[in-house]
Amino acid sequence: MPTNRRITLAGRPEGFPDESDFRLEEASVPQPGPGEALVRIAFVSVDPYMRGRMRNKASYAPPMGLGEVMTGGAVGKVIESNDPQLQAGDIVEGLLGWQEYAAVRLHEVRKVDPSLAPISTAVGVLGMPGMTAYFGLLEVGKPKPGDTVVVSGAAGAVGSIVGQIAKICGCRVVGVAGSDNKIGYITRELGFHAAFNYKTVTAYDGKLKELCPDGIDVYFDNVGGSVSDAVWRQIALRARIVVCGQISQYNLEKAETGPRQLFQLISKRARAEGFLVGDFRQHYPEAMGRMAAWIREGRLKYHEDIAEGIENAPHAFLDMMRGKNLGKQLVRVSDV
Amino acid sequence: MPTNRRITLAGRPEGFPDESDFRLEEASVPQPGPGEALVRIAFVSVDPYMRGRMRNKASYAPPMGLGEVMTGGAVGKVIESNDPQLQAGDIVEGLLGWQEYAAVRLHEVRKVDPSLAPISTAVGVLGMPGMTAYFGLLEVGKPKPGDTVVVSGAAGAVGSIVGQIAKICGCRVVGVAGSDNKIGYITRELGFHAAFNYKTVTAYDGKLKELCPDGIDVYFDNVGGSVSDAVWRQIALRARIVVCGQISQYNLEKAETGPRQLFQLISKRARAEGFLVGDFRQHYPEAMGRMAAWIREGRLKYHEDIAEGIENAPHAFLDMMRGKNLGKQLVRVSDV
Repeated sequence: MPTNRRITLAGRPEGFPDESDFRLEEASVPQPGPGEALVRIAFVSVDPYMRGRMRNKASYAPPMGLGEVMTGGAVGKVIESNDPQLQAGDIVEGLLGWQEYAAVRLHEVRKVDPSLAPISTAVGVLGMPGMTAYFGLLEVGKPKPGDTVVVSGAAGAVGSIVGQIAKICGCRVVGVAGSDNKIGYITRELGFHAAFNYKTVTAYDGKLKELCPDGIDVYFDNVGGSVSDAVWRQIALRARIVVCGQISQYNLEKAETGPRQLFQLISKRARAEGFLVGDFRQHYPEAMGRMAAWIREGRLKYHEDIAEGIENAPHAFLDMMRGKNLGKQLVRVSDV
Repeated sequence: MPTNRRITLAGRPEGFPDESDFRLEEASVPQPGPGEALVRIAFVSVDPYMRGRMRNKASYAPPMGLGEVMTGGAVGKVIESNDPQLQAGDIVEGLLGWQEYAAVRLHEVRKVDPSLAPISTAVGVLGMPGMTAYFGLLEVGKPKPGDTVVVSGAAGAVGSIVGQIAKICGCRVVGVAGSDNKIGYITRELGFHAAFNYKTVTAYDGKLKELCPDGIDVYFDNVGGSVSDAVWRQIALRARIVVCGQISQYNLEKAETGPRQLFQLISKRARAEGFLVGDFRQHYPEAMGRMAAWIREGRLKYHEDIAEGIENAPHAFLDMMRGKNLGKQLVRVSDV
């Protein structure tokens, strides 16, 4: 009889998490009840926001309980169903957790069209991270042709897509990422106009002035911290700062302080705005259609780093938090 | 022969300015050239933004040069004119500087209708500070009835007007100011729903929670610093933070650091935005008409603190920077 291997939250880390904060458990495969379907998970996503859920403190979502299956987007195939609207063979995506099987209801999942792109993209470029890039850039950043757009975390699941959509919008795109390999990828493969490695460049202000001589019109911020401090000092008149993530701050044992720079918003008549991708949910289908078309046309590329086996999800998550991944970090749980 | 007494910039202070940074000079009254008019100044305005102009660093405007007449809004009467569109007796307002007389051209001034309100209001509630309150609150803060609006610098020229306009919008208004006298004024005279003295209350977070149990929808920030840090921690979903001024930071010898709180913008889907009132210039007449009507109807009150004589402008400016004024700080230069 098959078992459902899953990863639960075992501890609440103060600083950087380690594998002891997670536990691999074996449970029986759930029996779908009335109105439920059983999904065999193919890919589980690991994302920075999960770090927030590990705290015992509500943010925009309640915290996870100790012993609960780790939250996370996943895509898989329906293998048994008690709902006529979910057929065996359907590919579905939802917050199914870090596990091999999940019992779901129709309203908890979104059906995925496997003819659009490989199904792994349902938790990547055509899923939450891609939607985050699309709506964050277009609806919050409001780029105009000719704008200079700076993206931090530029080689990650969100940043790599942001930069390419900004290019499609006719912007000049500058990326900030944490390795020379990433810099090579975003400039040579993805066509970013310029980029720098924040771990080897030390004078961020000078580098940004060099790469953005007319100032920065849109800053899509995934990281926060001292990179963002420097970008704020170089914003242009009427700049839009899209506050998407602050990954540099998530694993600090003690909260950092930083320069007070709100006056920049006055002198540049600029705006800093946060958003949650879920607020745009009703517009996902249109966005996914456009993104899928850009992929087919070769205008939007994506890279997936894939770890193998649910038992490696914690390691994949920790590596992602350390910035070791290129593009979207996934965990392959099964071949469906 | 009359002289034109004026105040020039004598030094560039590092921290808090003192009177030695200003010089009282006597010059001859300017002779208006072709197309110019001579204005006898009645009231000079002293405002926080002037501190920025004393630095040798461009902000949203170029710095003043040493030896130049201090910049500043002023209102006065045309006493001689070589432009038929400016008649002797006309009341005009413009950036005439800290002096007793100014030669001006038509495009440099705005005509003031003395039947609307006392002419001192042309540099106060019906001038730049009032317009700052009106457009900052309405166009940037976008208050809705039932919103909780917090105003820092709440007894000042801008904040006192912001709170009253927010009341007119149907908001619950909470002020933060720096003396019990100011707190009494804004709650008893101006009808703010609640207020606290940030110099005697020490636990800002708890006080804000008590006074704003549903969180803060709009924060109109004139001061920055630790008051603002606490407000940021209490913002409500989709809050708008209007960054108008950061007076707590202007006189620091060494720039402060503060907590990194940009994640709040994400988890609350909130926005922080700066603005300059001049960007709304073309809409001033409509706004001034509405504000004048509210004054006549008794819905909008204002207070002026008036120092006497141009020689006292530096002292009035320094007192204003120390928060000693209530409402708008002016300097009476003559009775026109």
